[in-house]
Amino acid sequence: MIKAIFLIQAEDKKGLLASTVDFFYSKGFNILHCQQHTDSYERRFFMRIELDASDMKTTRKALEDEFRALADDLGLDWSLHWSDYRMRVAILVSKTSHCLYDLISRQLEGELQCEIPLIISNHPDMEKVANQFRIPYYYFPVGDDKAKQEGKIRDLLKRFDIDLVVLARYMQILSPEFTDEWKGKIINIHHAFLPAFQGANPYLRAYNRGVKMIGATAHYASEDLDQGPIIEQDVVRVNHELTPTGLKEVGKDCERRVLASAVKAHLEHRIIIYSNKTIVFSVER
Amino acid sequence: MIKAIFLIQAEDKKGLLASTVDFFYSKGFNILHCQQHTDSYERRFFMRIELDASDMKTTRKALEDEFRALADDLGLDWSLHWSDYRMRVAILVSKTSHCLYDLISRQLEGELQCEIPLIISNHPDMEKVANQFRIPYYYFPVGDDKAKQEGKIRDLLKRFDIDLVVLARYMQILSPEFTDEWKGKIINIHHAFLPAFQGANPYLRAYNRGVKMIGATAHYASEDLDQGPIIEQDVVRVNHELTPTGLKEVGKDCERRVLASAVKAHLEHRIIIYSNKTIVFSVER
Amino acid sequence: MIKAIFLIQAEDKKGLLASTVDFFYSKGFNILHCQQHTDSYERRFFMRIELDASDMKTTRKALEDEFRALADDLGLDWSLHWSDYRMRVAILVSKTSHCLYDLISRQLEGELQCEIPLIISNHPDMEKVANQFRIPYYYFPVGDDKAKQEGKIRDLLKRFDIDLVVLARYMQILSPEFTDEWKGKIINIHHAFLPAFQGANPYLRAYNRGVKMIGATAHYASEDLDQGPIIEQDVVRVNHELTPTGLKEVGKDCERRVLASAVKAHLEHRIIIYSNKTIVFSVER
Amino acid sequence: MIKAIFLIQAEDKKGLLASTVDFFYSKGFNILHCQQHTDSYERRFFMRIELDASDMKTTRKALEDEFRALADDLGLDWSLHWSDYRMRVAILVSKTSHCLYDLISRQLEGELQCEIPLIISNHPDMEKVANQFRIPYYYFPVGDDKAKQEGKIRDLLKRFDIDLVVLARYMQILSPEFTDEWKGKIINIHHAFLPAFQGANPYLRAYNRGVKMIGATAHYASEDLDQGPIIEQDVVRVNHELTPTGLKEVGKDCERRVLASAVKAHLEHRIIIYSNKTIVFSVER
Repeated sequence: MIKAIFLIQAEDKKGLLASTVDFFYSKGFNILHCQQHTDSYERRFFMRIELDASDMKTTRKALEDEFRALADDLGLDWSLHWSDYRMRVAILVSKTSHCLYDLISRQLEGELQCEIPLIISNHPDMEKVANQFRIPYYYFPVGDDKAKQEGKIRDLLKRFDIDLVVLARYMQILSPEFTDEWKGKIINIHHAFLPAFQGANPYLRAYNRGVKMIGATAHYASEDLDQGPIIEQDVVRVNHELTPTGLKEVGKDCERRVLASAVKAHLEHRIIIYSNKTIVFSVER
Repeated sequence: MIKAIFLIQAEDKKGLLASTVDFFYSKGFNILHCQQHTDSYERRFFMRIELDASDMKTTRKALEDEFRALADDLGLDWSLHWSDYRMRVAILVSKTSHCLYDLISRQLEGELQCEIPLIISNHPDMEKVANQFRIPYYYFPVGDDKAKQEGKIRDLLKRFDIDLVVLARYMQILSPEFTDEWKGKIINIHHAFLPAFQGANPYLRAYNRGVKMIGATAHYASEDLDQGPIIEQDVVRVNHELTPTGLKEVGKDCERRVLASAVKAHLEHRIIIYSNKTIVFSVER
Repeated sequence: MIKAIFLIQAEDKKGLLASTVDFFYSKGFNILHCQQHTDSYERRFFMRIELDASDMKTTRKALEDEFRALADDLGLDWSLHWSDYRMRVAILVSKTSHCLYDLISRQLEGELQCEIPLIISNHPDMEKVANQFRIPYYYFPVGDDKAKQEGKIRDLLKRFDIDLVVLARYMQILSPEFTDEWKGKIINIHHAFLPAFQGANPYLRAYNRGVKMIGATAHYASEDLDQGPIIEQDVVRVNHELTPTGLKEVGKDCERRVLASAVKAHLEHRIIIYSNKTIVFSVER
Repeated sequence: MIKAIFLIQAEDKKGLLASTVDFFYSKGFNILHCQQHTDSYERRFFMRIELDASDMKTTRKALEDEFRALADDLGLDWSLHWSDYRMRVAILVSKTSHCLYDLISRQLEGELQCEIPLIISNHPDMEKVANQFRIPYYYFPVGDDKAKQEGKIRDLLKRFDIDLVVLARYMQILSPEFTDEWKGKIINIHHAFLPAFQGANPYLRAYNRGVKMIGATAHYASEDLDQGPIIEQDVVRVNHELTPTGLKEVGKDCERRVLASAVKAHLEHRIIIYSNKTIVFSVER
């Protein structure tokens, strides 16, 4: 079945739901799933609607144009996605393999519906993993000129028609130019339960503070380090028996799970960003 | 704000969502929250819709009648609830106080929006708790004639206009007549992670089996013991250091939390029962 | 059974375990439980040892003196506790009842083995709860002279022979004099997952940051606000459907559980403080 | 650092801890970690003791002999393990890759300290995964003669000097001869929260029962299907939006985590089996 998925947000007002639902019904679509949320605190309307587009009477272009007319009337901010398009994901890594292995194996098992046409790194270490899965590996050391190194990466992303960049423990801060250009399209995993322990060495700092749980946070990258919209978080219980090294090892499972879950939500068009926060819709599976 | 809440289910077919949403829109209602779920496996449509009914143009009776006409047309199975009605809850207990204290204190704090006009027991032990909160306490020992004892309880529930019965560790099996009469209106807490350890002594059996987690299950009572629709479950991690007594103590927290959460969902009209299962909608708070 | 519990810490060196265990064995004690932890990072030795003291051959005083001699030799920092002594706990509250109800009901059910001889508050609101359980309630408004108000509380704690102070949502910062005098004997519940959201209004700040989990932290009070040794933490998953008010309500369960668990660990002599952190031993139950 | 690890169990009696600790102290060992547990319900003593064996004065054989003398005196049931020996693990799979990828990648990252000299399957599907990591793959279809197929596997395990067999979703029941020969050395992952949903199709049965959490269980294989000693369990929260297929997918994460955690505990010699249950000691990391 081919599905069309609309993600919609707007300032809340009466009739948004009825008008939208009515539009799709009048076009003869079967609505598979409709999720609506109104943030009464921010007075904002959010909706995800999933249509059966298997036997569409019109072209995709025509549907898009007709919906645009309605959206302009109602003041909707929206995007349209088709289930038969597989997004193209670039993975950026540094020296650790746990998130990389996890993402690739989930893609191979069909859990993550996407292509992974390349892996990019500032270190040579992960080339062996890329080779095991026959994924092209690009190694760009940072060196003296960081802007130049970043330029090479950004060129490559364009050349490979990349839709989503996943920082799977890529230990370099991105420039504002990079995060601006790819706004809402870079997912980072931070190895702490943000906003606790922003910045470097979170596990050592967690040890020193004596916390009883450690966590991981997946978020969209933004100009301000570790400040972008949070997509997913999870924690794991720890105790006095764990040294900083032990915390790091225990934390890996959390990182894997949280990053994979955030990437999956993005690939399934379940995320709307608003006001530096995310609405993450659940889906029937 | 006064809210009207509709709970709807039907065999799935095109246009159910659009027709329903359109009905409320055409009556001038502001739709506060609309949640829709289609079980593609069972081909069944479920919906919870919350309306702002503060300045209704018609009577409640009129709204009900008009919606009935639509529902008959579409083949909807539905119920309507008003947020300004506080449900009347009877708590049945035996000898343990942890769930009883928990429910009463949550009601006093406004977390559970209901009245608790009486507590019923087959033992005298909990009268002192009832007295602390000045709630009438009825003690009916089971004795030789269980049907007679049950009859007294059922009479009392009618006399007090009870809407919901909560079995807060009431250690008596109810007759099919009782569970039939109160179908979908009795919530029980079972001190195990059902369907594991159905029946008596779950903690001892959990100990003997050497499980690494124990749990609790809140479900609607049905004729078959521990087989009714599950509303909520939770577990807690345990290890070899816990004896059966320790498991029991640790499990209490689980029981409290799970029972309170299920009762809350019922009071907020967030549960639809279908095919011995529940759909539990979440809500904006 | 009467138990003697030793809590021991020392700079790590060979033979600490053997010497200590041997001491108790040579005195004819049955060792019920022995837990030992060496922090290899800090090179520090920690131990909790539980003895059957039912048919002791000597006096308690004699045992203490003999162990002191050994401890001085080995350079142990230690304390001795007897299971037949019920600690006396003062609860301090402001306006919210959820932790208060929870602590009292757990004490009544025997989950928390202690006395609660009084409740102290800077507001009159919780007097009705105290009255339900016939616990003396002392109301000291803060007014202009905070030092004076605190003085009254500290006098009362001495007069009532209090062993442990529990801040069950007491919304006042304590002076360094108070926290110094009661070092390691005041447990506070903070309604956030520290070190995230230190200070006021954590739920609003969690909402604004768009976190996907909120938490609670129980810690010993120290001079620096929200910086004392953490005893216990827990979190609960939240999503975009929760407003700041909703987060607050959902967080209550976490607060209850975390505070009760920390108080229980303290009452059972399972906590050793070192370097602004805690070792919390588990126990057989 | 080379470590010697003793796992000890015995009928409980006075002096077991003191005698054992004293033995190692008198031999000049530094005790790195000592964990002792007495099951007061079963009156049984359990201990794990970790020694620094870097500069041993005697041979390993001599230490073993001397400890045997003590153990015979005290009636200890024990085993001795050396940290510089890497256990040899055979992975058995059928058609699914998620646990296989997970185990291999954790081994490569050093999280699981072992060798994986071969993968065995009753299907050809996973050969491509084995090839990616250059691990020999043996494919033995079950065919008409199951005993013969099992014979080939058992031969291979001997020939490869295997220490531990991991059933990473191997969908064949093993014969009692096999489980007897490898008692306490076969770890299986069951995709349900045992004892709920023993046997086949747990996810479909979980769907039909309408449970609100699903889980996974790692246990030692025994003659009786799904009845062996449980090592580790975990659950994940689910709701009405998940079909049986969705439950299956969500459950995979649980299976991965639980199996890896059980294998790790076995490799680190942290498990003692008694009375169809396990004591799983935690360790400093």
